[in-house]
Amino acid sequence: MKAVIITVGNEILKGRTVNTNTAYIGSFLTHAGYDVIRNLVVKDDPDEIGWAFETALSVSDLVVSSGGLGPTFDDMTVSSFAKHFNIDLALNEEALSVLRQKYSMQKLPVTPERQKMAMLPVGSIAVKNNVGSAPGVFMELNEKKILILPGVPAEMKDILSNASSLIGKSDFFYYDDTIHLEGVMESSLAPFVSELMKKYSGKVYIKSHPLGMENNNPKLDVEVSSTGSSRKEVENDVKSAIEAIREHWKERIGK
Amino acid sequence: MKAVIITVGNEILKGRTVNTNTAYIGSFLTHAGYDVIRNLVVKDDPDEIGWAFETALSVSDLVVSSGGLGPTFDDMTVSSFAKHFNIDLALNEEALSVLRQKYSMQKLPVTPERQKMAMLPVGSIAVKNNVGSAPGVFMELNEKKILILPGVPAEMKDILSNASSLIGKSDFFYYDDTIHLEGVMESSLAPFVSELMKKYSGKVYIKSHPLGMENNNPKLDVEVSSTGSSRKEVENDVKSAIEAIREHWKERIGK
Repeated sequence: MKAVIITVGNEILKGRTVNTNTAYIGSFLTHAGYDVIRNLVVKDDPDEIGWAFETALSVSDLVVSSGGLGPTFDDMTVSSFAKHFNIDLALNEEALSVLRQKYSMQKLPVTPERQKMAMLPVGSIAVKNNVGSAPGVFMELNEKKILILPGVPAEMKDILSNASSLIGKSDFFYYDDTIHLEGVMESSLAPFVSELMKKYSGKVYIKSHPLGMENNNPKLDVEVSSTGSSRKEVENDVKSAIEAIREHWKERIGK
Repeated sequence: MKAVIITVGNEILKGRTVNTNTAYIGSFLTHAGYDVIRNLVVKDDPDEIGWAFETALSVSDLVVSSGGLGPTFDDMTVSSFAKHFNIDLALNEEALSVLRQKYSMQKLPVTPERQKMAMLPVGSIAVKNNVGSAPGVFMELNEKKILILPGVPAEMKDILSNASSLIGKSDFFYYDDTIHLEGVMESSLAPFVSELMKKYSGKVYIKSHPLGMENNNPKLDVEVSSTGSSRKEVENDVKSAIEAIREHWKERIGK
């Protein structure tokens, strides 16, 4: 099952904020068996947000977005999504009662800006936010799943965890492991890696990450990963490929 | 002038690596006066890479990519880009001579895997890489600019800097500043921010970034930015808007 992750926010595009949310959600979904195929980052702009959801839904089974869920004028992810797919917004009584409770604890009124966070697409579910005020939004559309999260990392993580059962697990298991090698260049290892992947008929994926070169001593992380329907097979394949790389490296360095 | 930043790499999509390259490039381009409108992250896959460049070029004047420029089987950004736009690859003598020099210093041969890094699209320019082996690739296509960078951050930063004059500066100046506020919630500030932006007729953009709530004391960074043809006007607008926010905050907290 395929997933696309969307981030909404000018601060990401300008490089003011590093997009750690996407990495967190990517790891979460990968370990739930999803194949994360694209990340799309767009501006706080209704047309751009509409484009991102349209594009993401056209190639995936699950779309998770973060950003643009707060009380300010440029928090427009939910309304832009709903407008793009012609879905009405309605006051979600559950979300409103949570907002009322949170703001009353601080002796603050639920202003129109705050109430906006309880206007959800008709047919969606408000997903609990234990950290902040705006709930997450989950809905199904044309047999695809959509989860809309806020951009504040602590809130995003909390709601994502609360949405686990809604997102569901894929029938596939994912496993990876990394071996750290010194004294071998990525380009020297490349032919062996290609051969090894052929040997596993595409069941393992091997990617080398060069870590730089110090005193002419190149360092490399080699990551081996696999996805499949048998957890045991997936783990065994990764472990035996890691061993094959270790043996090859020993032979080379021994020379 | 609009820009789109592409990242190629499964490790980003799986959340193994946080996409710091995009933030660096986004900040670099924003301060050169470009309006960075989208980030696209795609897999190490020829079709996906082709889609990313096609999509990016359809909405922007400049496309900068990072990742997929090394010697391994899954480094395929240049070849996938060239194939998608029907551009032939040819051995770039300048890039090859740099590769030969770098590898000969380590008494290593230029294998086919290594020579691949000197196969560049016909009509492109090899951009100097003082840190690693693979040069950057710059070319113009239908009056749009394309810069293809490697994924290793130190190499990416070096080449991006070397490509400054090729990318060019926009005729616009960008300026931003941030004011840190305590004791005021994003939702409390929202109506004032909307009013203030109206007052500046859209010439300044104000975005609040909630930093969480400690002991019922909310913290907020409020970022004010502006882009325009007069550097002085842009800076003055941002500074006076920051002052207006500071005054408003003092009044509120004083109450």
